[in-house]
Amino acid sequence: MNQPRKPVASFAEIRALLAELPGPDLESGTRAATREATLTKPAGALGRLEELAGWLATWQGRHPPQLDRPRTCVFAGNHGVAARGVSAYPAEVTAQMVQNFLRGGAAVNQLCKTVDADLRVYEMALDRPTADFTRAPAMSEEECARAMAYGMMAVEPGIDVLALGEMGIANTTAAAAICLALFGGEAAEWTGPGTGVAGAALARKAAVVAEGVAVHKSACADPLETLRRLGGYELAAIAGAVMAARLARTPVVLDGFACTAAAAVLQALDPRALDHCIVAHVSAEPGHRRLLARLGKTALFDFGMRLGEASGATLAIGLLRAALACHTGMATFAEAGVSGKEK
Amino acid sequence: MNQPRKPVASFAEIRALLAELPGPDLESGTRAATREATLTKPAGALGRLEELAGWLATWQGRHPPQLDRPRTCVFAGNHGVAARGVSAYPAEVTAQMVQNFLRGGAAVNQLCKTVDADLRVYEMALDRPTADFTRAPAMSEEECARAMAYGMMAVEPGIDVLALGEMGIANTTAAAAICLALFGGEAAEWTGPGTGVAGAALARKAAVVAEGVAVHKSACADPLETLRRLGGYELAAIAGAVMAARLARTPVVLDGFACTAAAAVLQALDPRALDHCIVAHVSAEPGHRRLLARLGKTALFDFGMRLGEASGATLAIGLLRAALACHTGMATFAEAGVSGKEK
Repeated sequence: MNQPRKPVASFAEIRALLAELPGPDLESGTRAATREATLTKPAGALGRLEELAGWLATWQGRHPPQLDRPRTCVFAGNHGVAARGVSAYPAEVTAQMVQNFLRGGAAVNQLCKTVDADLRVYEMALDRPTADFTRAPAMSEEECARAMAYGMMAVEPGIDVLALGEMGIANTTAAAAICLALFGGEAAEWTGPGTGVAGAALARKAAVVAEGVAVHKSACADPLETLRRLGGYELAAIAGAVMAARLARTPVVLDGFACTAAAAVLQALDPRALDHCIVAHVSAEPGHRRLLARLGKTALFDFGMRLGEASGATLAIGLLRAALACHTGMATFAEAGVSGKEK
Repeated sequence: MNQPRKPVASFAEIRALLAELPGPDLESGTRAATREATLTKPAGALGRLEELAGWLATWQGRHPPQLDRPRTCVFAGNHGVAARGVSAYPAEVTAQMVQNFLRGGAAVNQLCKTVDADLRVYEMALDRPTADFTRAPAMSEEECARAMAYGMMAVEPGIDVLALGEMGIANTTAAAAICLALFGGEAAEWTGPGTGVAGAALARKAAVVAEGVAVHKSACADPLETLRRLGGYELAAIAGAVMAARLARTPVVLDGFACTAAAAVLQALDPRALDHCIVAHVSAEPGHRRLLARLGKTALFDFGMRLGEASGATLAIGLLRAALACHTGMATFAEAGVSGKEK
């Protein structure tokens, strides 16, 4: 295991870690593909399930891969820009939902039980929101780097897969701003209803996104600057967790729009930085489909979900288990005495 | 429970049962929707998971719905048309794969373990294939009706959801012929690679489909005649199981192309006959997408699977469990003390 050695507090340290990201274990990937070809089914007939088994092997760096200890992490943070009225819910809902997570009442609790995943909830200074990004950078460099380091701590030895998600009133506004800064286009193309704004409120939300990006545009050539100026604690933590997972050879399942936008910062820094990540689902938040196209990622499913809190990523753990069960448990043609393809 | 009273052996008896199919339990569906609106998430934020919980309530006829006893049924049959060289695998593979199911080595065995489903395998006279449909009707009326009755026996009291699938070398040929007879178009539009035919062999397969439908066309105004002339034992059994499930208020998950084609016969007989069915996935077999469009069904996921044997339908049971866990286990806004939407 190649864990980060000490908490980082500067972007220089983040960049040093990024330079160390390991590549795929092609030998384990090849062993998975070799076994797959012997199993009692026409070649490729399990489609994406076969691909998932190979992906687990490749990025865990072992064959067979394992899925005994999946972990779901939900990072929660508050956003100064919530004061601009960009959300359908008041900012205190972030802390209320964290209590709901801790008491077991949220969707992600039920989903973790269903797929037998370990749920960790990380509350990030909810009483001290980031700055309103239309007036100042959301975070200082140290705050952003420390939030990333906090996210890194979610990755511990022995975790087989990491499902990531977030909770934070106004964070689809921050995610839209990050995407606009990273990929360009119009604010309205990246801005969606989030928890449920529509009409004039949605137009105001897009205007806030445009305003924020305009304020910080000159500094945003550096994706880490984009993250600190427009992001939030929970989004920085997700970026940190994605990096630390790569260093620890832990494959990652990304959730919806806010989570994927946070991860996109890393891909902007290094085009290979998300190769160990799959995206669970296409969110109903319209910017997500657009973002996935930019990242070159095909989500596993499209259920019209838009809840965040790692709900889609956790649901995907069940699909990974199914993929792995087929890969490791199926008989080969030789074992089963089944005739192969003719000619 | 409203179980069929005795095994049927004629189409007149099948039609009598079809006339008895119960409608949706709208009261249970409404109770599900009412609870859904109180749970700690923005309205609709769990997307299709919310819809699935409501569907289970509506077609089980109770609220809350249950998912303690899911059953996966795989019906296996052999097809005379296999002698025309339409499959990449020899016909003996049907029986070999049944042995593989019974010994626990197939994909569906691993998937049933993953989602904790009871697997039942129904071997249907594998040493006595149906007639080659390019020369004669595949089955007599009595054979077809008895195969349907055999499928009905898969539905027992206490089963919470039924996942259906099949195994039968050459049955994508039969399925393509059924679809061509039911929906028209060109044989090549309904004919796909199945277990892996391509090029000239695929063109020959399409020609066999066209030839079979041409032979029986005049009789195919009756969908049950289409089933007996072009189908097979396992496809008739699936149609029977779908009907019996409706009578017993057991929601059904359909699998890929062959399974959905068998069910389509019922929808051709009664446009409401598949209202209690969802389709798990879009198969890589190209006719499936086309068939789903004709049936007005949106599959849950698209993993490029094309294995049959109820593999996709069984995988979907895990998603149903997740939907139900959220519906029954989540806290309400009032219970959790979470603020509602503003304004």
